[in-house]
Amino acid sequence: MRDVYVAAVGMTRFGKYPDRPIEDMGREAVLNAITDAGIQRSDIEETFCGTGFGGPLLGQRILRDLGMTGRPITNVENACSSGTTALREGITAIRLGRVDTALAIGIDKLTRFGTGGTVPLETTDIEVGQGMVMPALYAMRARRYMHEYGATSKHLAMVSVKAHKNGALNPLAQFQKVVDLETVLGSRMIADPLTLYMCCPTGDGAAAVILTTKEKVQQWGVPGIKVAASVLQSGRYETGFRNMAVNELTTRTSKLAYEQAGLGPQDISLAEVHDAFAIAEMLYYEALGFCGAGEAKNLLERGETEITGRIPVNPGGGLKCRGHPVGATGVAQVCEAVWQLRGQAGQRQVQGAKVALTHATGGGIAGLDHGACSIHIFTN
Amino acid sequence: MRDVYVAAVGMTRFGKYPDRPIEDMGREAVLNAITDAGIQRSDIEETFCGTGFGGPLLGQRILRDLGMTGRPITNVENACSSGTTALREGITAIRLGRVDTALAIGIDKLTRFGTGGTVPLETTDIEVGQGMVMPALYAMRARRYMHEYGATSKHLAMVSVKAHKNGALNPLAQFQKVVDLETVLGSRMIADPLTLYMCCPTGDGAAAVILTTKEKVQQWGVPGIKVAASVLQSGRYETGFRNMAVNELTTRTSKLAYEQAGLGPQDISLAEVHDAFAIAEMLYYEALGFCGAGEAKNLLERGETEITGRIPVNPGGGLKCRGHPVGATGVAQVCEAVWQLRGQAGQRQVQGAKVALTHATGGGIAGLDHGACSIHIFTN
Repeated sequence: MRDVYVAAVGMTRFGKYPDRPIEDMGREAVLNAITDAGIQRSDIEETFCGTGFGGPLLGQRILRDLGMTGRPITNVENACSSGTTALREGITAIRLGRVDTALAIGIDKLTRFGTGGTVPLETTDIEVGQGMVMPALYAMRARRYMHEYGATSKHLAMVSVKAHKNGALNPLAQFQKVVDLETVLGSRMIADPLTLYMCCPTGDGAAAVILTTKEKVQQWGVPGIKVAASVLQSGRYETGFRNMAVNELTTRTSKLAYEQAGLGPQDISLAEVHDAFAIAEMLYYEALGFCGAGEAKNLLERGETEITGRIPVNPGGGLKCRGHPVGATGVAQVCEAVWQLRGQAGQRQVQGAKVALTHATGGGIAGLDHGACSIHIFTN
Repeated sequence: MRDVYVAAVGMTRFGKYPDRPIEDMGREAVLNAITDAGIQRSDIEETFCGTGFGGPLLGQRILRDLGMTGRPITNVENACSSGTTALREGITAIRLGRVDTALAIGIDKLTRFGTGGTVPLETTDIEVGQGMVMPALYAMRARRYMHEYGATSKHLAMVSVKAHKNGALNPLAQFQKVVDLETVLGSRMIADPLTLYMCCPTGDGAAAVILTTKEKVQQWGVPGIKVAASVLQSGRYETGFRNMAVNELTTRTSKLAYEQAGLGPQDISLAEVHDAFAIAEMLYYEALGFCGAGEAKNLLERGETEITGRIPVNPGGGLKCRGHPVGATGVAQVCEAVWQLRGQAGQRQVQGAKVALTHATGGGIAGLDHGACSIHIFTN
């Protein structure tokens, strides 16, 4: 099994672009990655495109006008993990030796559903049909967590304040404005205890990653970032009571990822985690092993997950501020991880970053805590 | 790179089932495959689900009520090649050694768009928007082919008559009725020269394949069918004049598949090809190397592609009669190939079948002859 390296990354600025074709966003991300690698388009041997809602043959539609057709293209869907599921398939193709160089794209355009912030998910899911939409689900998780561990709305707000602080340092983020605790706590209630500023936005965007072998990285003279782990798992089906203060899926997936990398939570220099709602980031601190059960509030109070802290989380602004075009998110997390490990993250640089973890999870359907969770670990 | 075997297959009868949930069809196909293998559900380590129009997280939705969650599930979309693209990813996972046993599902429910026979494809494609829908595209191919090689509508009708003859022997086919040349030629004109009986139907259905290693096949005591080749390619982008009498994509993909298998067209005992329209089957006889350019009509006149002929094509009835629930088709072709190679194809058995080829191609977008073509070769 060959080692795989990220040779290049590229993305669009996330935001709301209702008038821009989705294919055009994809092409910008791909060209940015190709430029970053300094290679030819023809060096890409195979492409995987992850999208939640981009429609049929999106990879082919993106590559067509770039003259990059005539080679294998596979479109992948796994809700919020669509982009990193595509990434995993690209890593697999290179590990197997099927190709030397693969492109993974993550992309979505949620403003196709309107700009009002709601995405009409088609579902036959009985719980969603009865009102268990994402904000409601996370609100229940928040309530349970607060009950179990004595966390408060202030801790949730601290997650959002940190996201905005970091997002303000990221020129590709959808939101680049610092906010204070009072603004977060005083914003409109979406699903008690989650206020508007504790929820990620909808939006549009694309990100791309070029994967290759050690030999090619050396040949191209680019800084290769090694893929130390690539793991995908799905949630378990459970009826009846679920302990919403614990995220079994992320806990299980991260254990497999640490095992594959031969590393542990103590080795992680920074993490990009799936903070779709403020409570999610707190749950994932614990599920990823950055602290024990109920200790997320302590991490926040001590500033340990700030860019300057012990274990910086979401230096790129997270889903909350970089934005969350579903399929694009996981690949954008990898862009941030790569920039951090190369020391190219500008004002939001985590000093001495050596190991980065990305975590994308999503697709809540009845009884599953999530349909797909993917964790990748990278080293420089 | 490890060899991969098909341990088991299963499918639903294709047809129009507007009142049946898509997940339920998927579960039937999966259970049929698991029963065919005589294994436990927990033996499936990873799942790939190919669908064109099944919506988000379809694999997860299918496996949920089967208690088969908690392991990696990846959803794949590649138009008519969705199912076999999922198959290829499953083969890749086993070749790499990531898992020993994988499940590939192909599935779609086209009656969700109504039962009138039209599927409202979302597209930003300029040619499709101007009327270049699939029947129109294939009609142009037919006209060009007839002009180049002197084939007639009668040859097109012969393809359909053969499909119906074979479909009548397949209890899982959507159409199981023998028709004559006059019926085909006299049916309603859809896109000149293609009449209604020269076009595949829309419909619903699911198919599933269990892939595993040589060791597991022996351990389970099932007849293992070896995967000798698994190739995916995409069409090249061309503007201006295209020679519609030649299918460059299938020609290129089949060359790669023959090379991977170390076999040639002369070694194929039977083929399941993508006869979405009667002309397509004729084009693919040539693209797959079963005869030279312009010679497809000779194969038909001599009965060489009949079940009893030199190179039987679509013994299962093809897309024309087995039906064409987009994502399900490629995996259903593999079911037929496996039954034929095991000698379990009943009245439609190809005597002495040793090597089977399956060919799925689809997704016409401007300038691409097709977005995704997948060819697999199997040996017993």
